[in-house]
Amino acid sequence: MLTLAYLIAITAEAMTGALAAGRRQMDLFGVSLIAFLTALGGGTVRDVLLGNFPVNWTRHPEYIYLTIGAGLFTWLIVRWVHKLRQLFLVLDAIGLVAFTLIGCNVGLELGYELPVVVMAGIITGIFGGILRDILCQREPEVLHRELYASVSLIVALLYLQLRHLGINEDSTLLAAFSVGVLLRMCALRWHWQLPTFQVKATA
Amino acid sequence: MLTLAYLIAITAEAMTGALAAGRRQMDLFGVSLIAFLTALGGGTVRDVLLGNFPVNWTRHPEYIYLTIGAGLFTWLIVRWVHKLRQLFLVLDAIGLVAFTLIGCNVGLELGYELPVVVMAGIITGIFGGILRDILCQREPEVLHRELYASVSLIVALLYLQLRHLGINEDSTLLAAFSVGVLLRMCALRWHWQLPTFQVKATA
Amino acid sequence: MLTLAYLIAITAEAMTGALAAGRRQMDLFGVSLIAFLTALGGGTVRDVLLGNFPVNWTRHPEYIYLTIGAGLFTWLIVRWVHKLRQLFLVLDAIGLVAFTLIGCNVGLELGYELPVVVMAGIITGIFGGILRDILCQREPEVLHRELYASVSLIVALLYLQLRHLGINEDSTLLAAFSVGVLLRMCALRWHWQLPTFQVKATA
Repeated sequence: MLTLAYLIAITAEAMTGALAAGRRQMDLFGVSLIAFLTALGGGTVRDVLLGNFPVNWTRHPEYIYLTIGAGLFTWLIVRWVHKLRQLFLVLDAIGLVAFTLIGCNVGLELGYELPVVVMAGIITGIFGGILRDILCQREPEVLHRELYASVSLIVALLYLQLRHLGINEDSTLLAAFSVGVLLRMCALRWHWQLPTFQVKATA
Repeated sequence: MLTLAYLIAITAEAMTGALAAGRRQMDLFGVSLIAFLTALGGGTVRDVLLGNFPVNWTRHPEYIYLTIGAGLFTWLIVRWVHKLRQLFLVLDAIGLVAFTLIGCNVGLELGYELPVVVMAGIITGIFGGILRDILCQREPEVLHRELYASVSLIVALLYLQLRHLGINEDSTLLAAFSVGVLLRMCALRWHWQLPTFQVKATA
Repeated sequence: MLTLAYLIAITAEAMTGALAAGRRQMDLFGVSLIAFLTALGGGTVRDVLLGNFPVNWTRHPEYIYLTIGAGLFTWLIVRWVHKLRQLFLVLDAIGLVAFTLIGCNVGLELGYELPVVVMAGIITGIFGGILRDILCQREPEVLHRELYASVSLIVALLYLQLRHLGINEDSTLLAAFSVGVLLRMCALRWHWQLPTFQVKATA
C-alpha cells in the first residue's frame, strides 16, 4: 500500500514541479529537471542528511523515467489541468502523507532517535517542494501555505505514537493516511493556517 | 568553552533565522524550520561535504529542540528585539567565530589538508546564513556585508597558524575569539568592507 | 586530454561565476566563493548524491586555489572581458562537455546503472551554473538557455553509446567533444532552443 501511495506521490509531485517550471517559461529540459527534483528531492535530501547511501532513486532508475515522464505528460495535458484541480490536491495530500511515513520509516530503520526520525519524515515530505520553489524563484510555499508542513509533522507524530502503542502496521498506516489527508483537505477548504508573525524591526 | 560558545552560537543564529522568516510573513512552522536551518545548516553542509556521517545534529537531538525553541522564543520577544540589537550583534560575532573554529577542528580530525580545513571552517561559519537568505529570497548578505565571511577566513588562518606554532589550545582559542569578535565589531562600527567590483559587461 | 579539458573547464566556469557575482556587487570574498562554487559545485553535488566520498576537490586542494585565483583574475581583467566573449563561450562549451564526460565516468566507475550514469553526467555539467544563479538570485539560465543542458544530455548518450559499441576511448572522447562543442556553438549562433510551454492555469 505504501509503495502504491509512493508512486502516486512522486507522480503528483512531478506534475506540480512541471507546472511551476512551465509558469517560468522553462524549456522541455527545465520542466523535466524540475519535475524530477520536486518528486525525488525530498527523499534525496533525507538520504544525504542521514548518510543513507546509495540515495534511493539511484537504486531505482525507473523513478527517473516515471518522474520525467509525468513532467512531460503534464505538458501535453496542461490546458485541461485546471479542470483536474480537485483531484490534483487530493493526490498531493496523499503524496505528502506517503512521503512523511516513508521518511519516518527510513529514519527508524537506520536507528536514529525519535526527534531525528520526525525530522526525516518532515524533510521527505516538504523538501521536494522547497527545492522546486527555490529553482523557480518563488517563495517556498510550504512555509506559508494552509497547514501543509504541519500536516507532515502531525502525521509523523501520530504514526510514531501508534507504533509505540503496538498497533499493527496496517491500521497505523490507515489511520495516518486518513487523518493526514482529511486534515489537509479541511485546511484547504476552510483556509486553516498557523499564525504568522510580522517583524518590522531591523535587528 | 568552545561548547558553551557553540550553544550561544546556534541560539543566536536560530534567532536571526526566525527574524528573517518573520519578515517574510512565514507561519510558525516556517519560522521554526528557518531557525533550525540557519543555526545548524552550516555544520550540516560541512559534514555532508567532508563525508562526516552521521551529521552532527542527528547525534544531538537536543539541538533540534534548542534551535526551534529559540526561534519560537524570538516570536514572543519580537517587539523588544530591536532594543537588544547591540547584544545580538555580539552574540552573532561569537557565533561566527565559534562555528569557524569548530569547522576547522572537524576538518583537522578527519585528516584533510589545510586548504580544505580552512574551507571547512568558513563553510561552517557562513552557510547557515546563506541557506537562510536563499529560503527567505534575500541577497546572501554574508557575501556583501561588512567583513563577515572575511572574519571567518582570518580566524581560521590565525587558529591554524597558532596551532602550528605549538601554542596551547586555550590560548589559541582565546586569541582567535578576541581577534575575531573585535574585528567584526570594528567592521560594524566603522563600516569596514572589502572592495566590490561592478561589472557591466554582458559576457 | 580529459584532465586538461577539466582544468580549462573549472577555470572558465570560475570566471562566469565571478562575473555573475560582480554584477550583484558582491565583495572580493563573495566573488571568490561564487567562483569556487560555480566551478566545483556540479562535481560536488554529483559526489554527494552518488555517495562518492571524499568529494573530489577535498582531495585536490590545488583546485581551491585555481578557481579562487581565476575569480580574482577576472576582477583584474573585467573591463576587457567583453572583448573575449567569443573565446569565453568556446571555453564554456568545452567545460560543459568535459564536466559531462567526467560525471559519466564517475558514475560508471561506481557501478551505477546507465540512467543514473547519464544523470551523473548532466548534474556535473549543469549544477555549478544552477548554484551560481541561485546565489546570485537569477533565473537558473541553464533551464532556459539555447540548448545548454540538452547538449550535456546528448554528449552523455553519445559517449555511452560509443563505449557500448567498443570504440576506443580516444576516438570516443574526440567524437563527444566535437559533437558537443559544435552543437553548442550552432545553438548559440542560430538561437536553437527547445520548445517551452506557458502555463496560465493556477492548479
